[in-house]
Amino acid sequence: QEGTKTDSIRINQYGQAVRFQPLNAEAQDGILKFTSADKSYSIWMDNRVQFDGEMFSNDAFNPIGNGASIRRARFAMKAELWNNWYGEIDLDFSGSAVELKDAYVKYTPDSDSWNIKAGHFKESFGMETTTTSRYLTFTERSLMSKFDPSRHLGFQFNHWADKYLITAGLHFSTVGDNEEVVFTQDNNKDLGVDDGYSLTGRAVFIPINDEDKVLHLGIAGTYRTPKVDLEIPYSYRFSTRSHSSINRKKYIDTDDILNVDNNTMVNFELAGRYKGFMFQSEYKLVTVNRNDDLDAINFNGFYVQGAYLLFGGHHNYNAEEGEFTRITRGKEYGDLELAVRYDFVDANDFDNGIYGGSAEGYTVGLNYHVNPNVKFMLNYIYNNNDRFANGKGKLYAGYDADGNLTKDPTNVFDADGNGGDDFGMAAFRIEIDF
Amino acid sequence: QEGTKTDSIRINQYGQAVRFQPLNAEAQDGILKFTSADKSYSIWMDNRVQFDGEMFSNDAFNPIGNGASIRRARFAMKAELWNNWYGEIDLDFSGSAVELKDAYVKYTPDSDSWNIKAGHFKESFGMETTTTSRYLTFTERSLMSKFDPSRHLGFQFNHWADKYLITAGLHFSTVGDNEEVVFTQDNNKDLGVDDGYSLTGRAVFIPINDEDKVLHLGIAGTYRTPKVDLEIPYSYRFSTRSHSSINRKKYIDTDDILNVDNNTMVNFELAGRYKGFMFQSEYKLVTVNRNDDLDAINFNGFYVQGAYLLFGGHHNYNAEEGEFTRITRGKEYGDLELAVRYDFVDANDFDNGIYGGSAEGYTVGLNYHVNPNVKFMLNYIYNNNDRFANGKGKLYAGYDADGNLTKDPTNVFDADGNGGDDFGMAAFRIEIDF
Amino acid sequence: QEGTKTDSIRINQYGQAVRFQPLNAEAQDGILKFTSADKSYSIWMDNRVQFDGEMFSNDAFNPIGNGASIRRARFAMKAELWNNWYGEIDLDFSGSAVELKDAYVKYTPDSDSWNIKAGHFKESFGMETTTTSRYLTFTERSLMSKFDPSRHLGFQFNHWADKYLITAGLHFSTVGDNEEVVFTQDNNKDLGVDDGYSLTGRAVFIPINDEDKVLHLGIAGTYRTPKVDLEIPYSYRFSTRSHSSINRKKYIDTDDILNVDNNTMVNFELAGRYKGFMFQSEYKLVTVNRNDDLDAINFNGFYVQGAYLLFGGHHNYNAEEGEFTRITRGKEYGDLELAVRYDFVDANDFDNGIYGGSAEGYTVGLNYHVNPNVKFMLNYIYNNNDRFANGKGKLYAGYDADGNLTKDPTNVFDADGNGGDDFGMAAFRIEIDF
Repeated sequence: QEGTKTDSIRINQYGQAVRFQPLNAEAQDGILKFTSADKSYSIWMDNRVQFDGEMFSNDAFNPIGNGASIRRARFAMKAELWNNWYGEIDLDFSGSAVELKDAYVKYTPDSDSWNIKAGHFKESFGMETTTTSRYLTFTERSLMSKFDPSRHLGFQFNHWADKYLITAGLHFSTVGDNEEVVFTQDNNKDLGVDDGYSLTGRAVFIPINDEDKVLHLGIAGTYRTPKVDLEIPYSYRFSTRSHSSINRKKYIDTDDILNVDNNTMVNFELAGRYKGFMFQSEYKLVTVNRNDDLDAINFNGFYVQGAYLLFGGHHNYNAEEGEFTRITRGKEYGDLELAVRYDFVDANDFDNGIYGGSAEGYTVGLNYHVNPNVKFMLNYIYNNNDRFANGKGKLYAGYDADGNLTKDPTNVFDADGNGGDDFGMAAFRIEIDF
Repeated sequence: QEGTKTDSIRINQYGQAVRFQPLNAEAQDGILKFTSADKSYSIWMDNRVQFDGEMFSNDAFNPIGNGASIRRARFAMKAELWNNWYGEIDLDFSGSAVELKDAYVKYTPDSDSWNIKAGHFKESFGMETTTTSRYLTFTERSLMSKFDPSRHLGFQFNHWADKYLITAGLHFSTVGDNEEVVFTQDNNKDLGVDDGYSLTGRAVFIPINDEDKVLHLGIAGTYRTPKVDLEIPYSYRFSTRSHSSINRKKYIDTDDILNVDNNTMVNFELAGRYKGFMFQSEYKLVTVNRNDDLDAINFNGFYVQGAYLLFGGHHNYNAEEGEFTRITRGKEYGDLELAVRYDFVDANDFDNGIYGGSAEGYTVGLNYHVNPNVKFMLNYIYNNNDRFANGKGKLYAGYDADGNLTKDPTNVFDADGNGGDDFGMAAFRIEIDF
Repeated sequence: QEGTKTDSIRINQYGQAVRFQPLNAEAQDGILKFTSADKSYSIWMDNRVQFDGEMFSNDAFNPIGNGASIRRARFAMKAELWNNWYGEIDLDFSGSAVELKDAYVKYTPDSDSWNIKAGHFKESFGMETTTTSRYLTFTERSLMSKFDPSRHLGFQFNHWADKYLITAGLHFSTVGDNEEVVFTQDNNKDLGVDDGYSLTGRAVFIPINDEDKVLHLGIAGTYRTPKVDLEIPYSYRFSTRSHSSINRKKYIDTDDILNVDNNTMVNFELAGRYKGFMFQSEYKLVTVNRNDDLDAINFNGFYVQGAYLLFGGHHNYNAEEGEFTRITRGKEYGDLELAVRYDFVDANDFDNGIYGGSAEGYTVGLNYHVNPNVKFMLNYIYNNNDRFANGKGKLYAGYDADGNLTKDPTNVFDADGNGGDDFGMAAFRIEIDF
């Protein structure tokens, strides 16, 4: 009764009789994949190395070290089983530490119009965050992407059709970082408090999706109680690095906001393509609701980016996920992609005494797609921080009236908009996926 | 001279001429496996995701947080080489940390009646502990399972025949947890003391093993000197969580027992099946022998569990390992398993001033086996701790005469057997193996 | 335009149309490998378990604990893509921690006479260090091998021909150990200093390389500024264990040498084989250049080793890498290798007040190569430390005039050359590669 189309019995290592299905081994655009003749079973790998280097301008108030790193060293196993079931384990080993990325089970009925996931995976909030790091347009996501919750434990329902896509999820804490896991375990042990939860939904409309044109409109919302994977329970904190994994300074940092009841976010997505050109933009509004009749705190951010393939290729849109996927190269020897981005984030809420800083970034990128598996990326980014983007008072924010560097925003003696540490940076990435 | 049946030479990445054997790729009940035509070579994967959630009753003395987790995220590679050799690496990445599970070499002669293992693997003590977590009847093993040594470095000899199985092992420290490895290394560096060793043996008799019936009788014993993988050398400590990986409180905890010369354990196993019904039970007696004419300390525990498959399936017994393995489902669409367990552990030795606590658990489980790779588990467990199960004095154990919660067992003003923190819990698991 | 020889289109998990190439599955001397018919694509695994045990003589001044460990538990994925591209991820999980070993991209043109690597891999310095741990002659490399930089981020150019091999590399910090990664990140954050760099080159001449004979002459040099992956920036430190991963004492340790501008090293290699006999030797000279007109500090070391295969086998030399690779066994049932080594390291520079200690080792090894994948190793090593090899003053170095053990080298009352902690050790390794 082990419901499958096989013709014999074998014994596995646990002394158990098992059915077998012969598999075809293939490289699918360089990815190793095994599939049974009836397609009811397939299993494949997903490995990735990103080697990055970054150089910074020397005129920053706070000195920044140039450096290199393995940005990602990923290994994943993914399998489709018995027609309707899917399992995945996806791991990152960069920095000689483990990060558990995706680890989940998915059920998809024969109709192939919806699925449900259970485990650890990305919440459906933030178009650039849900886009796999394999297919990012720039070396790093925008400044505001750290608002996005990314991977959390939980359940998610997805439904898609030709012109739309809807997603709803119930989520708990995260297990994607060992420090957060230890906080969760310690808080459970010492305080006995619940994990916290999130309700997250996304709707995407795709009025146009043909060979030459795509138009994508999306909206997402999330309601989030504080999770226990924080050092300080019932807090909220937003902080981000500046388009860099090498420069470890977090200019933008709200520090811990205490006494939090919940936070909500809404996100608007507008994207599309026309022939070799694509654009993508998001606007995000964040509200932190506190107890004891304290006023709500608001943050926001947005980005807009565009890219053009110079050698005749085009970008591909994945309607089932509502995001761009790998490009198609225009020439056999590759394609060159020119990309620009403007992004902005505001983590100040002066009315409520929150001075997390605001910043904007101007990015120009040049990507060479050698083949489906090898990519070279070159980015130049100019970071413009405001005077409050001083890393919770640890970083210089400008010159005072005496011409000395000061970390105190109120002492910065400069016209509005001119304070804050600003600097340019150049980044390269060499990537191989296999 | 590279003794194999191949017909050509290739060059490997180390500039070395190599023979090759063509392999057949198969999915064996969903597990990817490659085998040479002559069966002298095979290699396969063993991946596993377990997504757990747990909820606790609100009337516990000590508040407990509900939560979710990835209980296991396993990746393993296993290979049979040159007919007689076997190698394995088995890793867990749950919690974004590495645990090295199995890493060993095994030699099995052509007679296939015995083998010898060398490396890191489970000692042959504790039937439920040696059963792989893939095939557990309940979401967590019994309270007393933490007495079992589980994986340690060393050597093990196994011999099996139709009606019996014997195992003998020599073991050293463990490398299954980074904290223990660091303790071992620091103790070696600072104190220069030997690893410690264990002698562990197990004998299983299987008087009945036919299509409908199995009767399993087992006995195991172990002699153990203190290992260096402890924070405090020459100590012994027993502690356990309460059928949960989410509730981090360890009610049962003997704290460090010092001045230990060795400890011994004996374990009795009784198990069997009749058609769709199976049962399994163990009784364990632990003795901690101390230096300086101090009296020996005794602990013990037992469990008894039974399970029935409602849709006509049956449990399978693996005589080579002396344990139950995966079930056979009764229907093509799956099988439903109803299971019950009572377990008990006593970590008190009042005569010797050890108040580690005792506890019992009542468990009802419902497992839905969808296919050979996907399983849903639902458990309800009632935990009944005694008044000494107070986590080394850190947890409330009852009410005192004034009606206030107290952590001191001697102040608990209640009839014997009624003190201690008791609570119910519900747990689910969604599992996929591939 | 996805330039490959395939005949159909499939859709991958990212909604992307992909070409596929059918692959042949093979075991190549026990290693699982998949190759397309046109050889433009191949992917393979490289797994390794080394189970070690070590025993020490009891007459050492400082007691040493006997012990066992999993020395290496390696998992690697390696792929050749689109004829010219290669990607690799190689990980170690021994000790239940991750070490990111190789993670890089390599380009090799059709001429197959040169390549260029980018990512994390071994610098071309130190013949025994660049030899994979699969094929080491002894359980541990020589005392002086810790001078070698091993893996660092960066770029490397390799060119080879029949009679020579040249390599040039530009390198930055390392990501092979989480502690070093954290130092790098913290130094970047707090100090904003650059990564540091190295220029490393190697030239190998192979005047003789035929079926029976090999003669290998090599020279390598490196110029290194201090890296940021150190606890103390702008420092240099040499320390090493004594041919052991179990004995955690570092007798030889220069402690942190501060105020370092750069260090340079030169290495000479002489190696060869004649029929069943091979020999290999290296001499290394290290110079640490300091700021502020401080004198340069010098260290040096060398080893010479020979091995003979008793059953008619021979060692194989890989001219493309300039190192020995796996042996060819003389008999179908295996081959026995007898090996000897003398090695020496001097980490004293008395003129500059550096008393890091010096030591020599006498090693006899017996290796049984069962098949291409299984190896047993047995080593006896006698370690002779000088009186300065006292682990920065933490270890006993000899007896003083009163016959008491002392850690102070100047109090050791013994003829020159007789002080220092000396001891014998026996080591075994059981290894399986698959």
